[in-house]
Amino acid sequence: MKAEIITIGDEILLGQIVDTNSAWIAQELFAQQIQIQQITSITDQESHILEALHDAASRADIIICTGGLGPTKDDVTKYTAAKYFNTTLVHNPEVMEHVQQIFHRFGRTMPEINKGQAEVLAIADVLFNDWGTAPGMWVEKDGKVYVFLPGVPFEMKNLMTYRVLPKLRDYKTEEKVVNKYILTVGVGESHLAEHIAEIEDQFPPHIHLAYLPKIGLVRLRLTATGTNLDKLEEEAEGWKDKLVDRIGNAVVATEDVSFEEVIVQAFAERGKTLATAESCTGGNIARLITEIPGSSKMFQGAVVAYANEVKMHVLGVQEETLIAHGAVSEETVIQMAKGVQQKLNVDYAIATSGIAGPDGGSAEKPVGTVWVAIAGPNEVKTKLFHFHHDRLINIERTTAQALLLLWNLFQQESEF
Amino acid sequence: MKAEIITIGDEILLGQIVDTNSAWIAQELFAQQIQIQQITSITDQESHILEALHDAASRADIIICTGGLGPTKDDVTKYTAAKYFNTTLVHNPEVMEHVQQIFHRFGRTMPEINKGQAEVLAIADVLFNDWGTAPGMWVEKDGKVYVFLPGVPFEMKNLMTYRVLPKLRDYKTEEKVVNKYILTVGVGESHLAEHIAEIEDQFPPHIHLAYLPKIGLVRLRLTATGTNLDKLEEEAEGWKDKLVDRIGNAVVATEDVSFEEVIVQAFAERGKTLATAESCTGGNIARLITEIPGSSKMFQGAVVAYANEVKMHVLGVQEETLIAHGAVSEETVIQMAKGVQQKLNVDYAIATSGIAGPDGGSAEKPVGTVWVAIAGPNEVKTKLFHFHHDRLINIERTTAQALLLLWNLFQQESEF
Repeated sequence: MKAEIITIGDEILLGQIVDTNSAWIAQELFAQQIQIQQITSITDQESHILEALHDAASRADIIICTGGLGPTKDDVTKYTAAKYFNTTLVHNPEVMEHVQQIFHRFGRTMPEINKGQAEVLAIADVLFNDWGTAPGMWVEKDGKVYVFLPGVPFEMKNLMTYRVLPKLRDYKTEEKVVNKYILTVGVGESHLAEHIAEIEDQFPPHIHLAYLPKIGLVRLRLTATGTNLDKLEEEAEGWKDKLVDRIGNAVVATEDVSFEEVIVQAFAERGKTLATAESCTGGNIARLITEIPGSSKMFQGAVVAYANEVKMHVLGVQEETLIAHGAVSEETVIQMAKGVQQKLNVDYAIATSGIAGPDGGSAEKPVGTVWVAIAGPNEVKTKLFHFHHDRLINIERTTAQALLLLWNLFQQESEF
Repeated sequence: MKAEIITIGDEILLGQIVDTNSAWIAQELFAQQIQIQQITSITDQESHILEALHDAASRADIIICTGGLGPTKDDVTKYTAAKYFNTTLVHNPEVMEHVQQIFHRFGRTMPEINKGQAEVLAIADVLFNDWGTAPGMWVEKDGKVYVFLPGVPFEMKNLMTYRVLPKLRDYKTEEKVVNKYILTVGVGESHLAEHIAEIEDQFPPHIHLAYLPKIGLVRLRLTATGTNLDKLEEEAEGWKDKLVDRIGNAVVATEDVSFEEVIVQAFAERGKTLATAESCTGGNIARLITEIPGSSKMFQGAVVAYANEVKMHVLGVQEETLIAHGAVSEETVIQMAKGVQQKLNVDYAIATSGIAGPDGGSAEKPVGTVWVAIAGPNEVKTKLFHFHHDRLINIERTTAQALLLLWNLFQQESEF
């Protein structure tokens, strides 16, 4: 069973928002063995929406559209869909009452403009939206399923979870897909590929390996397609084991998890705690760790020491060190790591200090100069990086490298 | 001049990565008055790539493809493009030398597999990649421009910035587009739309208004299209002024900036400082503020107080308060805000404490219960929220609401 996603709205095409909805929908469908063939982002123009619906229906069995269901004049999805299906919009009193209640709940009167939200496609099953004012719609026509959802991520996710995914469970076919994952750290994509080429060459045609590199990491995805789920599962598991054996120590996980999840789980299992003292990363490391459910078991907290006063008064960095070596120095970052380790009473601490840019660089320490320190139970490791000019990329790279260094020290001290 | 983006790679369609490249490319092209008509994400399958190239070329003048240029077996873009253009791949010795140098610089020998990266389309201008091993390519055929770039964001961005955008400056046409922006806070999309309907109704057909809502915010984008840039500019500015007058106090910016940028600039201008004490947001507020260049002028730092010990020992929250009222309480969040305000010596402080989920809720305080406090020079404001079950959404909503509350108090105390 193949699906496509159509996201409707000028804001994605103008680059004003990043389309996070599609990735979420793709993951959820994939968990039900439904594969997304294409994601198409288009403008709010009627002709363009009609073309996209037509093209998607020529390739896929399920078409999920998000966006353009709001009450304002730039929202045209519903009216365009009525043309596409050659149907009309009808007033739905239940939806009307629901929309009125939502405004009532917030102590507001419903603006006149929202009346239109109770109009739904005459041939649609209405997907009641308990989380907002725009109802979702489910249309079956000519053997295809079309789903229309609002683009607001929170509403879309709830409608998918409680209305759409349960209905989609009836739409499975014979083709099954099994995926296996291997997360590796510290080995480049090319070297990894060479290292496992011999195994990859032996794959039968229905087994496929994808390399998904990120900074410092490569995720491998092994996909097996066929009709017998149990057989595919066994086969994929067998090839995965072969790859894991060959890759050795660089493997940190054999499930579809993030590196942060691996770290949180490993620390929690061994009863070890973590804190961060962040200057140039500004809390980004703490944010990534605390996004993981259960991180409170191992993460104690962080000090974002942007100002030198905070480095001194909260973390105990010595004023003489800052004067002699500067905030971006090995000496400072060591004191930050030790300071937060002691103050927050943790086993491991990460400290970062660098010039993220775009300003603040000098000839001696250009933008992109970053020091990272990891304090463990027995020693402190430091590393100097020379990144480039983009502030966000510098923050991202520092974060990734700091987590890698933490993992290396943790592994070493845990004697894996 | 119309452009389309094609992103190639299974990982986007499986939802394993969010496509941030397209938004970035769209923004950059838009700054050159080139509008993206469609963004298409497809699999690494040859037939699908051929179809997408063909369809895009039927609609657009410029087609930018990212992904599938790596050295591994799942990367087929280059070979498929050769078929599409009915051309061949040729060995490029300069690229070969460059790839070898990259490995040499990192003290590694080049894996055999990377040799293929020196093969380029015979009809292409090579876009030298100083940031990675896969070269970009620029192809002109039948009046269309095709650009092929690696999918790694860092490499793509540099190739776009230094190789592609300068070349694209030669490809402009007569149609001009002018955009104006208004950022509003604290007014719902529907109410805003009703409030300005009378003005919107007077727009001539070449002026268009889009509503871009986010949690607590609505961004308005006014688009004027035509041929005379100066006239469009004047006209759009005139309509913008009318809207700004009508909307009044809810307007926080009249440029295309984020709410965080508005806060950073306003604090810096008035010489005010900020710190955060974050429990359930885990550093996310600090991270968003510090992503803004120049934030070091007003942001002193943050204490991510995940563990109660950190709330007590670093922020000075009283043990009795935690015992009597719990960590998620008005009393605790007030002490957190005052504690970080005093400790980091700032004018304003944000504190958050809540149950982000998915675990940790109780009958009295279910998952989604969040307290926020804002300490200003003269008073502390608090607010209780009841969000839902999704951890990441709870973090995001708490962050947005905390920044809104901060802004309200800041406005009030600055006597806007």
